[in-house]
Amino acid sequence: MSGLAGLLAGDLRVVNVGLASFAEPVAAAGAAVTTLDWRPPAGGDAESALRLARLYRDERIEAANAVAVERLLAAQPMLVDVMTAREAIPALADGPLLLHAGPPIEWERMCGPMRGGIVGAIVLEGWAADLAAAERMAASGEVAFAPAHHFDAVGPMAGITSPSMPLYVVEDAATGRRAYSNFNEGLGKVLRYGANDEEVLRRLRWMNSELGPVVKAALRSLPDPVNLKSIISQALQMGDECHNRNVAATSLVARQLAPALARQGDPGVRALEFLRDNNFFFLNLSMASCKLLTLAGHGVAGSTLVTTMARNGVDFGIRVSGCGDAWFTAPAPVPVGLYFPGYGPDDANPDLGDSAITETAGIGGFAMAAAPAIVGFVGGTLAEAMAYSVEMGTITLARNREFQLPTLGAGAATGIDVRRVLDTGSQPVINTGIAHRLPGVGQIGAGICRAPLGCFTSALAGIEAALLAAS
Amino acid sequence: MSGLAGLLAGDLRVVNVGLASFAEPVAAAGAAVTTLDWRPPAGGDAESALRLARLYRDERIEAANAVAVERLLAAQPMLVDVMTAREAIPALADGPLLLHAGPPIEWERMCGPMRGGIVGAIVLEGWAADLAAAERMAASGEVAFAPAHHFDAVGPMAGITSPSMPLYVVEDAATGRRAYSNFNEGLGKVLRYGANDEEVLRRLRWMNSELGPVVKAALRSLPDPVNLKSIISQALQMGDECHNRNVAATSLVARQLAPALARQGDPGVRALEFLRDNNFFFLNLSMASCKLLTLAGHGVAGSTLVTTMARNGVDFGIRVSGCGDAWFTAPAPVPVGLYFPGYGPDDANPDLGDSAITETAGIGGFAMAAAPAIVGFVGGTLAEAMAYSVEMGTITLARNREFQLPTLGAGAATGIDVRRVLDTGSQPVINTGIAHRLPGVGQIGAGICRAPLGCFTSALAGIEAALLAAS
Repeated sequence: MSGLAGLLAGDLRVVNVGLASFAEPVAAAGAAVTTLDWRPPAGGDAESALRLARLYRDERIEAANAVAVERLLAAQPMLVDVMTAREAIPALADGPLLLHAGPPIEWERMCGPMRGGIVGAIVLEGWAADLAAAERMAASGEVAFAPAHHFDAVGPMAGITSPSMPLYVVEDAATGRRAYSNFNEGLGKVLRYGANDEEVLRRLRWMNSELGPVVKAALRSLPDPVNLKSIISQALQMGDECHNRNVAATSLVARQLAPALARQGDPGVRALEFLRDNNFFFLNLSMASCKLLTLAGHGVAGSTLVTTMARNGVDFGIRVSGCGDAWFTAPAPVPVGLYFPGYGPDDANPDLGDSAITETAGIGGFAMAAAPAIVGFVGGTLAEAMAYSVEMGTITLARNREFQLPTLGAGAATGIDVRRVLDTGSQPVINTGIAHRLPGVGQIGAGICRAPLGCFTSALAGIEAALLAAS
Repeated sequence: MSGLAGLLAGDLRVVNVGLASFAEPVAAAGAAVTTLDWRPPAGGDAESALRLARLYRDERIEAANAVAVERLLAAQPMLVDVMTAREAIPALADGPLLLHAGPPIEWERMCGPMRGGIVGAIVLEGWAADLAAAERMAASGEVAFAPAHHFDAVGPMAGITSPSMPLYVVEDAATGRRAYSNFNEGLGKVLRYGANDEEVLRRLRWMNSELGPVVKAALRSLPDPVNLKSIISQALQMGDECHNRNVAATSLVARQLAPALARQGDPGVRALEFLRDNNFFFLNLSMASCKLLTLAGHGVAGSTLVTTMARNGVDFGIRVSGCGDAWFTAPAPVPVGLYFPGYGPDDANPDLGDSAITETAGIGGFAMAAAPAIVGFVGGTLAEAMAYSVEMGTITLARNREFQLPTLGAGAATGIDVRRVLDTGSQPVINTGIAHRLPGVGQIGAGICRAPLGCFTSALAGIEAALLAAS
């Protein structure tokens, strides 16, 4: 016997690829079935799948990606200074301009928490006398808005950065390139979740007038800048993934800065109290470090390395090393997670903030194996945490040599490749806080979301266009 | 067929218990052999094995152990104060007396590092003008020596405590009971490894005159005492096992104390510098906490709970809840570990120090699963680290409710039962530093050792005698 008849003569052993239901009648008839979890590439979009096939083995891309990811891995973020935003980013000194998280967005389309943050910042800057006047001003077009990313800066959640705020200055020891982030306000009612009442503004004024200057003075008194890459590496050995958990990194940097802050008298004491009580203090330093790492990998012609993932609460946007300043966007998803008592998914704002820069650099959700407490918070196990980190290894270009994950015995999966995301259908996993969709309410939970596939299909088209233009 | 002939008629499947070599000819003849890793109880000592059989199901012991281990688990160590040793332990004010680690030992039998520490402490106290005179004084009998444990105190390695030194005062929130430990000197040339030159004495004088008083002042300025149990619980989630690795716990306590120390001016700044540079700062706080926990479980008639394991560099000694002040000793083993370049096992002093109180309380080597970096240091893996913690679960009475091990998803194995050690042959595993056998050289490595079985066979006899006396 041969051919089809021969195939069916013996005991059937079937491998089913795709929809599990296809195999059910076969199994019911008594055959052994192995179901493979397979999804068509590029989310089933034929045009993108063909493009992916054309670009998957393009030698120019391979070479460009090798350069880009090596630059990302080699950067050495050091905390060198604190400057006001208007000193660090001259555009902020020119006219009423505020920076926000994520890709570009106009006032009319902004989500509640971002509007709340903007209104608060306008009052903080003294451009309007009260919140109502500030809201009219924001809607009138008198204030310009731009992504923080356009100035090599990042901010968590709404990410509102105004001229008087202090920024961390993080510098690459190798190249001198700089990235910036604002300071973390702590938990509770904070501007980054859209709260803007007097308590919020009072804290921001203290951060402007005292916290920023005293941290600056402490840093300048140190013989060497603070090696943030070393702190992140250590913290990954200590249960942090440096996005949603920063307890170890905050404690390590507090211990390192404490003598220099203590030498500054009462303002230093108050800074140390703030550091003691804010387990998210390091988040913004982690973000600025990751911005610097990904900046180092940006701008390599032909590279499909993702160098930014950011959300404005409406759109999710990515930027790609070989595609210059272009943003590739799709609607921002709502995170899946655990809500604080009294809140649920209906209250949640879609995903928000520049903090996905941590995942872009290979930590955060990509380093979940380092921080089983994050998934434990929503009832998950160490095995599930490890599974996220293993899965992210299928869409990345390298293993980080310095960011090691102790439970995996391997470096963090680093450097998202647009092509691998589309080929596997494994969307980048992001650990995130969940904001209430209305301004002023604040954080209502924490969870996990996946970068939308649409950003990556658009980016692939952008890459192909850039390659065609160059050839 | 029946009987022996029937047994041998079919295919042979053999379970071999004990020596693996017994099974070799059977396997060579073609039979399937499963070799069970079994050792006779009580190390093969027939008298002890019979005693173990008599005591294994004694209801008085079961009831006493339930009380003792519950008391251990329930204690709440809080750092409440710093006192000089002579204030905390009045016997030290009465005459020339020095405390040392481990069970009692006379000068003639003391190891090199302990002699070095004693000679240094005599000069520190001004009882002799120089090291040579101090050594003559120590040998003359003019100075008395006693275990720190006899005064509810502990010290790592040589553990020398002299009247002028500052001690941490750790208090059980529930009972008011107190335990003490000296301060950690850091790494390098230090008294606890028997070094005693001018550099060592200068640091000790600074600790006496400035560090102790400024930490005391800082503690007294806090609204609440420092909850050491909470810090240990957190640190176990952050890669520490709180014996040989204390990075997280040191950082957490530094961050908590920093504002209060900063308010003390220059001495506070110097204390914060010392805290910044000493990753073992928390070790002595961990030890004092564990001393308090095990003290809480001590003194329950009939209990076989081990409440002390301690080494003086010559003898390894244990104390047992139901056996009062009695020490059960055996020769101290040499740790197996990794040596610093230029040193090897021939240079090593046998195991030394009170720090095995951490394992007695269920952390340290018992919590190795929390700190894979410890076994990683000697080339081990996470799986090996987890295996130590799982094995210790076979010789203990409980799982700790608060000291959770993240990689195991279980509480630390807590409360060594003399009977279980003898029944399983699993000797308690201890993480430890390795001292050079000559005074003044210092630490030459780090590794692991096992508590000698001899302590446990003697202790079992002690328990039986105590039970007979009481009945």
